[in-house]
Amino acid sequence: MSTIQTLKGFRDFLPETMAVRSRVINILKTVFEKYGFSELQTPTLEYAEVLTGKYGQEAEKLMYLFQDPGGRKVGLKYDMTVPLARVMAQYPDLPKPFKRYQIQPAFRAENTQKSRYRELYQCDVDTVGTLSPLADAEILAIISDALTGLGFKEFKIRVNSRQILFGITKDLSVLQSIDKLDKKSANEVKQELSQKGLSPDEIQNIFAGLDSAKPDPNLTQIMDIAEKLGARNIEFDPRLVRGLDYYTGVIFETMVTEPKIGSITGGGRYDNLIKSLGGPDLPAVGTTLGLDRICDVIEELTLWPDLPKSATKILVTIFSQDLYSPALILSSSLRDAGINTELYPDASAKLDKQLKYANAKGIPYVAIIGPEEAAQNEVKVKNMATGEQKCLPEQELISFFS
Amino acid sequence: MSTIQTLKGFRDFLPETMAVRSRVINILKTVFEKYGFSELQTPTLEYAEVLTGKYGQEAEKLMYLFQDPGGRKVGLKYDMTVPLARVMAQYPDLPKPFKRYQIQPAFRAENTQKSRYRELYQCDVDTVGTLSPLADAEILAIISDALTGLGFKEFKIRVNSRQILFGITKDLSVLQSIDKLDKKSANEVKQELSQKGLSPDEIQNIFAGLDSAKPDPNLTQIMDIAEKLGARNIEFDPRLVRGLDYYTGVIFETMVTEPKIGSITGGGRYDNLIKSLGGPDLPAVGTTLGLDRICDVIEELTLWPDLPKSATKILVTIFSQDLYSPALILSSSLRDAGINTELYPDASAKLDKQLKYANAKGIPYVAIIGPEEAAQNEVKVKNMATGEQKCLPEQELISFFS
Repeated sequence: MSTIQTLKGFRDFLPETMAVRSRVINILKTVFEKYGFSELQTPTLEYAEVLTGKYGQEAEKLMYLFQDPGGRKVGLKYDMTVPLARVMAQYPDLPKPFKRYQIQPAFRAENTQKSRYRELYQCDVDTVGTLSPLADAEILAIISDALTGLGFKEFKIRVNSRQILFGITKDLSVLQSIDKLDKKSANEVKQELSQKGLSPDEIQNIFAGLDSAKPDPNLTQIMDIAEKLGARNIEFDPRLVRGLDYYTGVIFETMVTEPKIGSITGGGRYDNLIKSLGGPDLPAVGTTLGLDRICDVIEELTLWPDLPKSATKILVTIFSQDLYSPALILSSSLRDAGINTELYPDASAKLDKQLKYANAKGIPYVAIIGPEEAAQNEVKVKNMATGEQKCLPEQELISFFS
Repeated sequence: MSTIQTLKGFRDFLPETMAVRSRVINILKTVFEKYGFSELQTPTLEYAEVLTGKYGQEAEKLMYLFQDPGGRKVGLKYDMTVPLARVMAQYPDLPKPFKRYQIQPAFRAENTQKSRYRELYQCDVDTVGTLSPLADAEILAIISDALTGLGFKEFKIRVNSRQILFGITKDLSVLQSIDKLDKKSANEVKQELSQKGLSPDEIQNIFAGLDSAKPDPNLTQIMDIAEKLGARNIEFDPRLVRGLDYYTGVIFETMVTEPKIGSITGGGRYDNLIKSLGGPDLPAVGTTLGLDRICDVIEELTLWPDLPKSATKILVTIFSQDLYSPALILSSSLRDAGINTELYPDASAKLDKQLKYANAKGIPYVAIIGPEEAAQNEVKVKNMATGEQKCLPEQELISFFS
């Protein structure tokens, strides 16, 4: 059968990859919960009506819309924000501010040649129902904590606000060009503006505006609170634009420079969006973290060399059919002590094959109970990395791992 | 808009429900990993060809099959076994035995009147690539450990095997009637068999066969190893049938009797299935755990009264605009100490409103820094359950939670 494979843009997460993902998710959850955010999960499918007409026709082309077996028009989740708006509408009694995080896949029929995933894991953290600058600052502090917790050495959190940008120009097309200043040179952007019909004077005024821009009192307060909350490396950057039809106040984006990852978070305040998505009229602020990108980079660059390939600490081998029982009992004792233990299932396999299995799975230690060890009530333990072996009583082996 | 709601058979998991689910999943993962199983995740979507033609027409009617925006015929995952077979085919170099667990949603357009979910979370644990009875026994030990870990007081793991059943009768229709013996009386089942055309003698022979049935050597060995691995409450039950077209050896099912939940796991050995699903010719054994049912029962019967409604330990209130700063600093110190802390975002909200918010969210403690406390460098802490209040220095508050 030719299609016994994953669909393009979809991925299997085999055990080693899952180990990285699980640790990333655990670190992020711990940070979110430290700030009082709770987990929300919403269904994979929504009524098509909930999804469509919200983000424009370009987005809709990427949506997985279809009829379910009962003839309903449905669609796969496109992001976490539309479901959040629906949840706010459907459960009006949720205590507000509603502080939730959500880590689930979204589905977009993207061009896979741009190495985009069609099932992408989104990780969103948002506060709904307050205009307080504290809520904005908390999101910045969470980003800083999360990136530090993930072990990224150098990053900056660039912040700006819609109000500051609109003080420089209200022309959205001009702002789109300004947004390219982190990838293109100033001259290239100036040329682009000139092609868009701006006079040299107008262009100079815009660049002068950018050079002299300062955080307004609202942004100053947000940055100040964020720093009091422990956020590091927050930098005002009047060149940061993001999607202005969407955001109503502060906007932010993270650049991780060591390792070189680039932008992995983006967010801001969006006080009208929940209503425009069909929810109630509630202000909100939040960020998305590029979970897939974070996990991929950590795996590709081996940023966590200490993360074990396997959660299993030890493989208990079976020396021979008649030494099956002590191997069983040892496995059981190790597990009772909370030690992740794999017992090789095949009593007829040669010891060499069992050791190769431990190596292939990245299990760091192997226990062997041969006739001598059994006679002495001991276990031979082999460190698979160094090849070192020693014999010791079961209780000492348990203490070693505890 | 009328369809601003979840689709029937689909569910939002709001924070309180998620707290139960997260704990259940953590307990299960810990048990699986203790036995050396690793996590696998596969995509939500598969080629339709991977899904169809595997489980018969009845199953196919329940599948979500559709065309993606690129015109491919695709479908939503129907279970975890077909993707497992595909993974075994797609990655032939995976070390074997391949021991994996998988906790992800599957999709079935079931009749929702039977209170079935259309997006149901499956939790499967399987060993692929070995015929060893140890692998069967490990699955039984895992079930026992998982149910004990979840806190279920009384359960039995009923075991039987296809070989034993076929020694009594090879008539599948008769076996289907026998399978009802845990719900119907012996007389009702005898009547049913009579209606199926069996003579009184034949019926008597079948019941005599059931009464005198004993575990065969293979099943005896599996039960024996499972008990050595610490599995509790394994009972041979020749009346257990399950899906015989599917299983090739041992079969098992769990009955939880305290609390009264009924069957929440089912599995067995299926040595031909992976091949018949399009995978390689590999024997396998495993079980599924009814995750949704387990979570629902724990929540409905409040089986975990100690599980906090909220992961947040304390709400730091803001007494007034000018006492904002000490509240900020306190929150930051608590978080630095790893204590999940929520800071009420609105400095203009009355204290009463802030306390109500803590109550609504189930946050157990509230910190108040009023003018007196600020002057004395102390924090007033209120236990929301007892109403008890006391003043203490910040460091003592941190020690209290640590």
